[in-house]
Amino acid sequence: MVEQFEVVTRGQGLFEFTEQVRKVVSHSGVSEGLCTLFMCHTSASMTIQENADPSARKDLEHWLSRLVKEDDPLYTHTCEGSDDMPAHIKAALTATSLSIPIINGRLVLGTWQGIFCWEHRYGNHRRKVAVHIGG
Amino acid sequence: MVEQFEVVTRGQGLFEFTEQVRKVVSHSGVSEGLCTLFMCHTSASMTIQENADPSARKDLEHWLSRLVKEDDPLYTHTCEGSDDMPAHIKAALTATSLSIPIINGRLVLGTWQGIFCWEHRYGNHRRKVAVHIGG
Amino acid sequence: MVEQFEVVTRGQGLFEFTEQVRKVVSHSGVSEGLCTLFMCHTSASMTIQENADPSARKDLEHWLSRLVKEDDPLYTHTCEGSDDMPAHIKAALTATSLSIPIINGRLVLGTWQGIFCWEHRYGNHRRKVAVHIGG
Repeated sequence: MVEQFEVVTRGQGLFEFTEQVRKVVSHSGVSEGLCTLFMCHTSASMTIQENADPSARKDLEHWLSRLVKEDDPLYTHTCEGSDDMPAHIKAALTATSLSIPIINGRLVLGTWQGIFCWEHRYGNHRRKVAVHIGG
Repeated sequence: MVEQFEVVTRGQGLFEFTEQVRKVVSHSGVSEGLCTLFMCHTSASMTIQENADPSARKDLEHWLSRLVKEDDPLYTHTCEGSDDMPAHIKAALTATSLSIPIINGRLVLGTWQGIFCWEHRYGNHRRKVAVHIGG
Repeated sequence: MVEQFEVVTRGQGLFEFTEQVRKVVSHSGVSEGLCTLFMCHTSASMTIQENADPSARKDLEHWLSRLVKEDDPLYTHTCEGSDDMPAHIKAALTATSLSIPIINGRLVLGTWQGIFCWEHRYGNHRRKVAVHIGG
């Protein structure tokens, strides 16, 4: 089964969408299987990270944005704005697809694991995610 | 269904092989399912990136090669050439496997998403990729 | 089929668990299919890397620990120890899930590819890995 949904983002950072995935898993009726997420964009990505303390998410965003600078004189792909080429690099360094096993109808996420869309561009976006649930 | 094919590379950089994957998906006859790619090497990897403007691909390669330098005095694994240890690090930072859902017999790639082999070594190589198509 | 097992780690570095995965694949009886691994933690991750020369693994660990420093003044998430925030960043830059096709009952790993748990924290840990085997 494949479904698609959107994750709303509001600027650079991590936006949790664990609940949206849980709903698809629950709706699928699959008891034991695999849930695979795919981000249909090259300037946003995904990560599974600490879901308890928001400071960890902020530090992740700030650390990566310091590593992958805007307006780096190395860039030649500059026509789409200062945040565009860094967004492609950040997406390449993080996850475009993620697979999570399902046991007893539930994702086997650890206690502190949440699923996040990592938005690498400014502004508000609606990011398309495709979800495959297999037995 | 699992198939294997080779991607020909000619030195460091990104080499698109979206069409090779599309052919396997089409040949499988699977209408709704999941396509998983696996790179059978530790000095080449994969990325899903902007397929329109070649400048984005060049910047990705140049940025990563600046981050992961050759002949770093930190390296002790130096017996296989200056490009070998950086290749392992670059592969670890990018994707060895990627999964893309299939809807209506087609990969759900976004408009600007292409599938690339990221070659991290000099010289010409034939990189083995294994493709699994599941329902 | 989904199984879970633990990988024992003893401080920061790469710990191979290819044999544990091979046993699950063999036990599943699946001849052609897909094996997906999921790390149930946010301060450990996975990589598929050179399994022959231990120096490559040491260099990977040292390179990443130099990139993602402890006690970086950028961090605000500091309550869980000096190795905690770097561990989250390292996990985000490497793999939380990995998928490997199966042919003739065997993983299609290349000759030099081993599967490793990448421990990012000090001390001894038992890291939970979930394995899904599909046809």
